[in-house]
Amino acid sequence: MDTLDLLRQLAIIIFFAKLFGLIARKLKAPEVAGEIVAGLLIGPSLLNWVADTDFIKGMAEIGVIMLMFDAGLETNIQQMKRTGLKATLIAATGVLVPLVLGTFLYMIFYGFSAIGSEKFYHALFIGTIMTATSVSITVQALKELGKLNGMVGTTIVSAAIIDDVLGIIVLTFVIGLKDPSQNILTVTLRTLLFFVFAAAVGWVVYKVMNVIDEKHPHTRRIPILALAFCFILSYIADKFFGVADITGAYVAGMVLCSLRDDSYIARKMDIGSYMLFGPVFFCSIGLQTNVRTLDTSIIWFSLAFVAIAMIGKVIGCGGMAKILGFTKEDSLKVGVGMMTRGEVALIVSQTGLRVGMLESQYFTSVILLIIFSSILTPIFLKNLYEKHGEADYTDFRHPVKPARG
Amino acid sequence: MDTLDLLRQLAIIIFFAKLFGLIARKLKAPEVAGEIVAGLLIGPSLLNWVADTDFIKGMAEIGVIMLMFDAGLETNIQQMKRTGLKATLIAATGVLVPLVLGTFLYMIFYGFSAIGSEKFYHALFIGTIMTATSVSITVQALKELGKLNGMVGTTIVSAAIIDDVLGIIVLTFVIGLKDPSQNILTVTLRTLLFFVFAAAVGWVVYKVMNVIDEKHPHTRRIPILALAFCFILSYIADKFFGVADITGAYVAGMVLCSLRDDSYIARKMDIGSYMLFGPVFFCSIGLQTNVRTLDTSIIWFSLAFVAIAMIGKVIGCGGMAKILGFTKEDSLKVGVGMMTRGEVALIVSQTGLRVGMLESQYFTSVILLIIFSSILTPIFLKNLYEKHGEADYTDFRHPVKPARG
Repeated sequence: MDTLDLLRQLAIIIFFAKLFGLIARKLKAPEVAGEIVAGLLIGPSLLNWVADTDFIKGMAEIGVIMLMFDAGLETNIQQMKRTGLKATLIAATGVLVPLVLGTFLYMIFYGFSAIGSEKFYHALFIGTIMTATSVSITVQALKELGKLNGMVGTTIVSAAIIDDVLGIIVLTFVIGLKDPSQNILTVTLRTLLFFVFAAAVGWVVYKVMNVIDEKHPHTRRIPILALAFCFILSYIADKFFGVADITGAYVAGMVLCSLRDDSYIARKMDIGSYMLFGPVFFCSIGLQTNVRTLDTSIIWFSLAFVAIAMIGKVIGCGGMAKILGFTKEDSLKVGVGMMTRGEVALIVSQTGLRVGMLESQYFTSVILLIIFSSILTPIFLKNLYEKHGEADYTDFRHPVKPARG
Repeated sequence: MDTLDLLRQLAIIIFFAKLFGLIARKLKAPEVAGEIVAGLLIGPSLLNWVADTDFIKGMAEIGVIMLMFDAGLETNIQQMKRTGLKATLIAATGVLVPLVLGTFLYMIFYGFSAIGSEKFYHALFIGTIMTATSVSITVQALKELGKLNGMVGTTIVSAAIIDDVLGIIVLTFVIGLKDPSQNILTVTLRTLLFFVFAAAVGWVVYKVMNVIDEKHPHTRRIPILALAFCFILSYIADKFFGVADITGAYVAGMVLCSLRDDSYIARKMDIGSYMLFGPVFFCSIGLQTNVRTLDTSIIWFSLAFVAIAMIGKVIGCGGMAKILGFTKEDSLKVGVGMMTRGEVALIVSQTGLRVGMLESQYFTSVILLIIFSSILTPIFLKNLYEKHGEADYTDFRHPVKPARG
C-alpha cells in the first residue's frame, strides 16, 4: 500500500468535506449533506481525485463506530426508559410497512407470483433491503440541531437500535426460507445472548471505570480505555453474536453514559470524530458511488424503490408515533428521522447477492436510496424543527428523576 | 480487507499501549518506551495478537505525521533563530561521526578494503544507515518532561530537521557512487526548492488562515484546515521534492506556529494523537519486529552496531554542543536526544537492499538499533533532566523579542 497517497487523499477529503459542509450550512442544509456531496464530487463520479480504498473503508468504519459510541454516550437513560415500549412499537411497524410495500413494489414492476416461488423470494428480498434504518446520519443531524436528547430524538435512536435487531431477524428469516441452515430461533437467541453478555460485561466495565474515574478524574486513560471498550464490544457483537458492530458501539456508549466523566469522554471522542473520522465516513458514502456507471435500465424501478422505501418508514414509524400520542408534527419528525438507510442496507444487499436472492443491478437502487435518504432526511428534519419546535412530553409518563438534559 | 478485525486490533493496541505506558511511568521510564514494549508483546514476537497490517501501517504513518506537525506547531521561532547555526553544526558532526564510525565498524568485522571496491560500498552503507536521527520519540519524551521548548529541546529538534536533510543528501550521494543517474547537485537543489516552495505556499496559507482565524476564532474549521495543509504539504514534500514527508509535516507546523490560534490547533491535534494515532505509531515499531526470527549469526555485529550508532551521535552531536558553549550536562542531553533512530533508518535500509548495497540480514541490526535507541533515549533523557535541570542560556545571544516559552 502506498502510505504516501493516504496523506493526499485524507487532505482532499477533510478539506472538501469541511468546505461543502460550510456551504451546506450557508444554504440552511445540514453539514452532513454537504459532506456526502463532497464525496460525490471528489470521488469516481466527477473529479476522481479520491478512491474508496481499503484504508478509507477502514477509516470510515472507525468513523461510524465512533459516531454510534458517541450517540450511546449521550443517551439519556431516563428518557430511554420512557421511550422503550413506544420505540419498540415504532420500530416494529417501521420494519413491517416497508417490507410489505417493497415486496409489492417488485411484484407491480415484474408481475405477481406465488408464495414460495423463486420470483417471490426476489420480491421479498427487495422488501428486506428496505427494513434496516441507518441512524448515524439522523444522529448527526439531530446533534447539529441540538435535538438528540429530546423526546423525538431519543425515540428515533431507540427505535433505530431495535429496528437494527428486527432487520437482522428479518434478513435471517428471509434467507432462512431458502437456506435451512439458518434458524430464526437461534438468531433471536444469539441476539438476546449478546444483550445479556453486554449487560454482564458492561456492569463490570462500568464498575472498574467508575473506580478509575474517581481516582484519576479527567485523565487521558479514561477516554482511551472507553474507546478500547467500544472497539472490542463492537467486534465481539459482530464476530460472536452476529449483531451489527454499530449496535455494539452504541451499547458500549450506553454502558458508560452514566459515568461521572461521560461528557469528558464524549468531548474527546467528538474531536477525533469531527477532525478526521467523521468527514471520512460521510464522504465515503459519496465515494462509493459512480454516477457515470449507474445502470439506467432500472432507473424507473430505482426511483419508485427510493420513494417507497422512504414513504414506508414515514408511514410505518410516523403512523405508529401518532397512534402512541405524539403530535402530528413530531410524528412526522419520527418518520422522517427513520427514513435514512446506510451501510446496513448495502450489507444486506451483498448478502442477498451472495445467496442468489438479489441481482447485482439492484445495487443502483440501494445506492440511490442511501444518497437520497442521507441528503433529504437532514434537510427535512431541519425544516420540520424550524417550523414546529418539539412539543412538551413531560406528562407522557412521570420520570423517576428529572432528565439530565 | 476485514474491517471488523481492525476494531479488535485497535482495541488491543490502545489498551496495551496505555497499560504499558502507565507501567513505564510507574517505573520512572517514559510512556513511549512502554508503548513500544506493548507492541513487542502483542506483536509476532510474543502473543501474536496483532499484525503489522497495511491499515496499521497507514495509521502509524498518520500518527508520525501528526506528531511532527504538532512539534512544528510548538516551535518557538525566536528560540529557533537563536539555535539555527548551532543546530546546523551539531547536525553536521552528528552525521559525519556515525558515518565514519559505522564504515570502520564494518571493516573491523569483515576486513578493510580499498575505496571503490564492492566491499567498501557495503561498509559505507552501514555508516549511512546510522546517519539519520528519528526525532519523533525524543520529541514525545521531551514533551512529557515539559522540556520541548527549552534551549536543549529546540536545538535537538532543529538539529534533527537539518540532520534529516543531511541524511538524505548522504544517502543520495552514497547511492550515486554506484548509480550515475542520481546527482548530488540535483538532490541538493530539489531540497532547497522544497524549502522555497514551502516558504511561498506557507506565506499564502498563513495569511489566509490568519484571516479565517480572526473572523471565526476557535471554530472547528481552523484545526481541520490546518490538518489538511499538513497532510498535503507532507505529500508534496515526498512526492515532488523527494524530501521526507515528516519534514513536510514539521514545516507545515512551523508555518502555522505563529497563528493566534496555534495552541488551539495543537490541542486538537494532540487529542487525536494520544487517543489513537500516537499509540498505534509507537506500538507499530514493536509490531514490526519478530524477535523469534532474528538472525543470530550476526548478533555480535548487531550489538556493536547498536552501540556505535548511539555513541556516534553522542560524540558527534554532544561534542559539538560542548564546543558551542553548552554545559557538559546539556551537551550530553543533546547527544542522547539525537541517538534515536526510527522509520527513516528502515527506509534507508530498504533503499540499500534494493540497489544491492546492503544484505537483508543487516535488517536485524537496524531493528535492534531502533528498539534500543527508542527505549533507552527517553529513559536516559529523563534521568539526565532529573539530575541536572537545564542551564540558563539567556546570555547565549540576545533574543530580538522575549521568547514565548
